[in-house]
Amino acid sequence: MRRDEDQHNALALQLLEAAIGGDRRSLAKLLSLIEASDGGAHSVARALAGKSKHRPIVGITGAPGAGKSSLTDHLIARFRSQQQSVAVLCVDPTSPFSGGAILGDRVRMQQHVGDEGVFIRSMATRGHLGGLAVATPLALRAFDAVGFGQLIVETVGVGQVEVAVAGAADTTVVVVNPGWGDGVQANKAGLLEVADIFVINKSDRPGVDETRLDLELMLDLAATTSHENQWRPPIVLTTATSGTGIVELHDAIVAHTAWLAQSGVGQQRRAERVDAELDAAVRGEIQRLVMDINGTDVYTTQRQLVRDDQIDAWTAAQTIIASLVNP
Amino acid sequence: MRRDEDQHNALALQLLEAAIGGDRRSLAKLLSLIEASDGGAHSVARALAGKSKHRPIVGITGAPGAGKSSLTDHLIARFRSQQQSVAVLCVDPTSPFSGGAILGDRVRMQQHVGDEGVFIRSMATRGHLGGLAVATPLALRAFDAVGFGQLIVETVGVGQVEVAVAGAADTTVVVVNPGWGDGVQANKAGLLEVADIFVINKSDRPGVDETRLDLELMLDLAATTSHENQWRPPIVLTTATSGTGIVELHDAIVAHTAWLAQSGVGQQRRAERVDAELDAAVRGEIQRLVMDINGTDVYTTQRQLVRDDQIDAWTAAQTIIASLVNP
Repeated sequence: MRRDEDQHNALALQLLEAAIGGDRRSLAKLLSLIEASDGGAHSVARALAGKSKHRPIVGITGAPGAGKSSLTDHLIARFRSQQQSVAVLCVDPTSPFSGGAILGDRVRMQQHVGDEGVFIRSMATRGHLGGLAVATPLALRAFDAVGFGQLIVETVGVGQVEVAVAGAADTTVVVVNPGWGDGVQANKAGLLEVADIFVINKSDRPGVDETRLDLELMLDLAATTSHENQWRPPIVLTTATSGTGIVELHDAIVAHTAWLAQSGVGQQRRAERVDAELDAAVRGEIQRLVMDINGTDVYTTQRQLVRDDQIDAWTAAQTIIASLVNP
Repeated sequence: MRRDEDQHNALALQLLEAAIGGDRRSLAKLLSLIEASDGGAHSVARALAGKSKHRPIVGITGAPGAGKSSLTDHLIARFRSQQQSVAVLCVDPTSPFSGGAILGDRVRMQQHVGDEGVFIRSMATRGHLGGLAVATPLALRAFDAVGFGQLIVETVGVGQVEVAVAGAADTTVVVVNPGWGDGVQANKAGLLEVADIFVINKSDRPGVDETRLDLELMLDLAATTSHENQWRPPIVLTTATSGTGIVELHDAIVAHTAWLAQSGVGQQRRAERVDAELDAAVRGEIQRLVMDINGTDVYTTQRQLVRDDQIDAWTAAQTIIASLVNP
């Protein structure tokens, strides 16, 4: 157990060093280590401590088919035209596949073949609960440490996930389509809470004015009930197929990044993100302890004492927990 | 903190001693201590260790209005006619009230006024999550230790709660009405899993034959898919208003109690119950530890180190957890 951990730690350090040196294969392996279920994430986290460059993270979320991938591709091109390197993390919490198989990554990668300034990686839950809550911020930390100028996390929005993405990003772009939101009031409130920028993609379709009006009304309403955030999310119209509106979207992202720095909100969000990461780590460690309980000698002994009515369950629980933390 | 605990422990021991001596007011106070949110349950659990008499526990569950309370009243009278003392715990997870205010206890108590062989007590969640999972088995343990011959736990069935009741009881009686179950297939499976005895109450109403047939078909189906439990739940028809079928219900309970002892299933269920109690205690203790995290010096220090990117979240989490268990 201890030896595995030492090996993981050494591997993580070695891969990170090579990745910082520019080796993309080592970066890919580092991300696989984050996704590994045997504690690799922990080792990567250790290796990454002290390496943060705090580059801006843009989150792109929206329903399946809203056009997130195409928008991301256009944004990559735009960032590249400004001489910024870009790393993209594609998160699909609904897919069991990972490592480049989903979201058409391989197709999309071809567009950027030979461009060392672009790195795209897919991640999925792989079945372990809460895995993305740990892996997503860690993968972004790895991109940051390696030196990419702009980080993007693209997520299929399914309920609670938008909120998780907003937690991982500095600037959250919510992508909707004309006609969006007819009769899905509940979801709207959640999106409104996380959106820093709204994009109405496929704006060449009918219903775009109604959707924009709908969003503006929601934003007006939110503005009267909350004053803590002085930023009013702009609404950008795009047509990803033709590239219309991408410059405006890029400008909005740059403006929001500047506002984050100037208002102090960026620093506050970063602190909240770290706190959430710490809470997730505490929960994860506790879960690991609880999973380790069954089968230990202490547990079996204490359980028998409770079964024999010699001690009470709480006294046994305290003994068990103490033994797990200090075996 | 430590002093509060010592005081609680002393109080719990004193109340238990008086309750075993026959003082009902002390028993009532002991139950209030179990419900107290400041760790009283733990002290009562300690005091109760080694006092179990393993008297049978009957659980009565069903939808609101199914007639559980009236059936329980008839059962009390039946047990009393056999010279058995009876303690009843009424659990309503949907009510914020406790201590006798709900389920018409005060009205029902009048029927047994002056009968020292009957004790009825209501309990509710009082808003603390998971509270009933801890308080219900503990209150039943208290009844058991005090020397009641028959224990009854009556619960309004709302989804998951039936399962929790079944966990606390040796014999679970599920009360339905004629016409029950038209179109609620999902819930049926859950009830089937926990029921040791089915009661069709209000059997003077139309639809009783269809409901009985429906239950028999369900039981046939279950019998072909599972062989681990050799007991086939009998279906008893009752009319609580007139008292029809109460003798048959009582006989079924007695038969099931005998089967539990003879088959060894009773002992097995008791062990499972203890294990579940231990798991609840472990979860409760961990939850208490986690709630204590915020505000501690160790947490604040570690969080700042993570925010400053000097250490990673996992290393911080491990330090925090270790410090909580051994302050």
